[in-house]
Order: sequence, then structure tokens, then C-alpha cells
Amino acid sequence: MKKNILSEIKKRIQKANKILLSTHIDPDGDTLGSMLALHLILKKMGKKPTMFSGDPVPDIYRFLPSVKLIKNLASPEDFDLIIALDAGSLGRLDPIFKNSGPEKIVNIDHHSDNTRYGKINYIAKVSCVGEQIYALAKHLKVSLDKNIGVCLYVAIMTDTGNFKYDNTTAETFAIAEEMLKLGVSPDKTANAVYENRSWPAIKLLAAALENAQSTAEGKIIYTVITKEILVNTAAHNQDFTGLIDHLRAIRGAEVAILIREDHEKNRVKINFRSKSYVDVQKISKELGGGGHSRAAGAIMHGDLLQIVNQVVGLTTAAL
Amino acid sequence: MKKNILSEIKKRIQKANKILLSTHIDPDGDTLGSMLALHLILKKMGKKPTMFSGDPVPDIYRFLPSVKLIKNLASPEDFDLIIALDAGSLGRLDPIFKNSGPEKIVNIDHHSDNTRYGKINYIAKVSCVGEQIYALAKHLKVSLDKNIGVCLYVAIMTDTGNFKYDNTTAETFAIAEEMLKLGVSPDKTANAVYENRSWPAIKLLAAALENAQSTAEGKIIYTVITKEILVNTAAHNQDFTGLIDHLRAIRGAEVAILIREDHEKNRVKINFRSKSYVDVQKISKELGGGGHSRAAGAIMHGDLLQIVNQVVGLTTAAL
Repeated sequence: MKKNILSEIKKRIQKANKILLSTHIDPDGDTLGSMLALHLILKKMGKKPTMFSGDPVPDIYRFLPSVKLIKNLASPEDFDLIIALDAGSLGRLDPIFKNSGPEKIVNIDHHSDNTRYGKINYIAKVSCVGEQIYALAKHLKVSLDKNIGVCLYVAIMTDTGNFKYDNTTAETFAIAEEMLKLGVSPDKTANAVYENRSWPAIKLLAAALENAQSTAEGKIIYTVITKEILVNTAAHNQDFTGLIDHLRAIRGAEVAILIREDHEKNRVKINFRSKSYVDVQKISKELGGGGHSRAAGAIMHGDLLQIVNQVVGLTTAAL
Repeated sequence: MKKNILSEIKKRIQKANKILLSTHIDPDGDTLGSMLALHLILKKMGKKPTMFSGDPVPDIYRFLPSVKLIKNLASPEDFDLIIALDAGSLGRLDPIFKNSGPEKIVNIDHHSDNTRYGKINYIAKVSCVGEQIYALAKHLKVSLDKNIGVCLYVAIMTDTGNFKYDNTTAETFAIAEEMLKLGVSPDKTANAVYENRSWPAIKLLAAALENAQSTAEGKIIYTVITKEILVNTAAHNQDFTGLIDHLRAIRGAEVAILIREDHEKNRVKINFRSKSYVDVQKISKELGGGGHSRAAGAIMHGDLLQIVNQVVGLTTAAL
């Protein structure tokens, strides 16, 4: 089954002349690492793929090899193959793709609720799309190197919460081992991603922890970041990376909720993380969002206090 | 060389009747995980080892198998073999060992400055003593199981900073892979250790980040935890676990310093972490302490402000 899909993708790549690779909106370590690795793999096959991300690459990923080649403008109609990485639905891709039919699209993703919007859909139950690109590279018989290794290591590291989430498998560690043998430095890579926190991010974390509340006998931990806190800490979007994990790390917590007013737009972003049994994808869907069972989110509009009450109430009901 | 030492240890274990295993003072995940794993391995060989830790086991490690069998009282003279785990010198062992001659001691450790205080000294350059116990188990031909696996996984996970430090090798990941195949759950284990933070620890972290200072063009980040903060947050010794890593994670930081007044005793504890080039073991030695090149510490007495100035001054000079 997997081998069949990998063969189909291989054929599709071989006959393509102009290939466009794309991240999802608000790109993270998996979508970027997977795209960059695939780009390097395709180049080894003699292809000249173009990489696209509509949203900017967060600072912490700017050390990745070839990252400067990522374009923020592209016309899908100029390409005969579009490979979407880590996007669960067409809506998770940049608006430039809204009129791209399925015909040209290869959809490589690991979200269980993927809508299969491509002509070829390679959907696997693995920790990250990085593991799928690894499998694809093996199938394509392209030899990996240190640069590809760093990209795949970042995909794995970030999507497993640095080997802490329940999607981490023996195979995940086996791939990590191989990446180290290729020369990837686990400390330098982890430093670049995790030890690269801005002062605004530090002050934001301090405020988030200081304001953290617990309810439902400590099973729910939530914190609210108001526009005022954003102004006081000078924090931006990317300064939130990893913040919610600190809430989940509190003893007895099953669900962590980060509720934050948006800097620019009149909306409230909700992020959920759960530890072992609450399906936060389900809660997010009720709020118009999506994600995974242990990590999900939604965007809401309206009065902050009402939203807090609704979100906490819905989560309490899901315990 | 390593094989010779492993053979010597094997012989010593085989002829021993009463075996005492010991952690170092202020036990951490490596010394505890290694001792517990070795205890389970020795039991599989038909031995009945006794486990000792003079200091209490931190809450976050109380989920480990057999942890309830650890005693906090023992008479070394009642044993014909003492195996010390992860202790760089006799002074790192509990005072009950101060009159134990080298004759009975097998010293298993990975600190580069180990004083070789045992009759047999198995000192290796690996991420953790857990890796040495793994090698010993293979040499002893004892089959590993899930319980041993959890203990070794905790040793590896905690001493590599969850696979983030530069002591993480391809072999480290290969062992982790094997532990998962034995049934170890990476998420449950990481949750137990890292996602088990007390509210005092959270409030302490908030205060530490709020008060964090930077000097030497951002290369040194330090924070001072006064007795007043300890009282306000109700934080205890074990609530400091991992705190300093948050300081090291600030962009541009090379050395992180945590300076804290002791709750009960009239002394100041200094912890150092460095990112890539400053040898903090050297700085700690100048202050009467010790450790590794990237993680070290010392205990000082005197006026807090003077100590802060001395520590920051010495670190600046070492940049």
C-alpha cells in the first residue's frame, strides 16, 4: 500500500517538468524541514523544484540549509506538479492555491483528518511528514546527506515535542540515529530551535505563567494573553512557540489552553494541548478549528471573557 | 580496554555475597535510573543487591520501578561489594562511605574529572551512566525488559537534557530505540519527569524569568533567587529542576547562571550551564565546586551581592 503510493509519487516526480513545493500557512518545523529536505532530494534527482511559503519563515528556522531559496510569491498555474507538505486541507494552504484543482496536487501529510484534496494522497500515521519524506527518499534511492539530515531532524524534533509526544516511535529514534551518523549535531540543532528565545518571548512566558489558572481539580490549566500583555512584553506571533507546553507540564494537568488576543486583527486564538486522554481535535472542531488529538487550535471572534468561559466550559465537559 | 573492565566487574559481582548500590548525594535521573536498572539486572543474575540513597528521591522519579526498595540507611561494612553510580569523587557519595577503603568499591561514572576512588574504576565518555549500565548488561548477557528499559531511558533522557546536549550520540538514539522496542513509552516517561511541575515551581520560574539579567553583550544571563522569592513562591529544592535551562535558552546566551540563597542554610548555591564553548567546570572549580564542561555548580558563603559580583565577574573573564 505505502509502497504503491511511493511508486506513484516517484512516477509523478519523474515526468514533471516544473515542480512547486509548498508549506502550510504559519509554517512550523515539520512543514519547513520536510519541504527543504524534499527540495534537496529532488535536486539530487536532477529536478529544479521551487519552494513556496506565503507566510514568513520564523527566525528559529532561518538556519536551515537552502532556506533562503523559499519564495513568498508563486503562480501555481506555471507548474505541472504541486507537492503540499503537512497540510490537512486545501484551507491550510496559502490562498494562491484556492483554484488549484486536485489534478496537479500530491498531498503528503500525517493529519488523521486530512481531506485528501490531491490527485495522489500519501497520508501516514507517523510523527511527522519528515518521516514520510525519509521513506520517500529511501524509495527514490536518493542517498541522504548532512543537509537533508538537518532538515529531517528538525521536522522530527519539532513535531515530536523533542521526542516527548506519544507519536515518538522506535522508528523515529532509528531515523534520528541515522541523521546523527550523517553528521547532524543534536545539540546545535536543538540550540538553534529551542535555545534561541527572544527577550519578549521570555517576558511573555513569565506573564503567562504568572497569570496561569487551574480549574476542574487542576485537570485544566489555562492562561489568557491580552493585547495589554502583548504591548508590555513587545511579543509577536513567533514568541508564542512552545509556550503552551509549559502549561501542560504542570502536575495533574490533562488539558492546557492558551487563549490570546490577536495583535493586529480583532480575533482570539485558542491553542489546546492534552496529555493523555482528552481529544482536543474534537473540542477545536466544535469551535471551528482542527488539528491532532493532543494538539489543536481554533480562531474565534467576540468578547474575550465570553470566549474564555465558552472554551473552558467546553473543555470541562470533554474531561 | 572497556571489555577488560566489564570482565573485571563481572567477576567481582559473581563472587560477591552482599552488594550495596549507591547514588550520589542530591540524586538525579541518571544516578537513580542507573542504580535501579543495575539492581534489576543483578536480581536476574540471582543476586540480592541493596539500594541506598542518603538523600530523598525527588518526587518526579518516584514512578520508577522498584524505587520503594531504596533505603536511606545502610552500613557499608556489612557489604563485600559497593557499586557507586555517577559519583565523580568520594565526596559526592553520602558521608556513610567516608571510611570505605577503595578495596570494596566499584566506581561506575562518566565524569571526566572522576578521582578513581574505587578498586575498579569504569569511567567512560558517554552521555550518562545509564549507557554504561546498558553496556554492562550486554556483557553480562542479561536480557533487558521493560522495567530495566524505563530506568535506563530516564537516565539517558535526563542526562542528555532530553536529547538536547552535545553528549547525545548515534549510540544514545540506538539505545533509546531499543528501549522503545522493549515497551518503554517515551511520552509517559517524559510526562512523568518533565510534565510534573508543581505550582511553586511554575511561580518560581515566572519570578526567575521576570528577574533575569543579561550582561557581556547578552552572552551571560543570570538570575538571583532570594530567600524572599522562595517564601513567596513556596518553592523547595526540587522545584529548581530544569529552571536554569530556560535561561540558557535565551538568544545569544553562552552561559546561564542561577544564583540562589539556600532555604535553610546560610549559603548560596551557584549553577552554571554553557551552550557551546565556555568551560563552566573550570569556573566552578575556582569557586570550590565541580561538574561537567557544560553543566557545573558550586556552593558559596557570604554576602549575596558580593557573591553575584564575583560569579558574574569570573564568568565574564572566562568568555
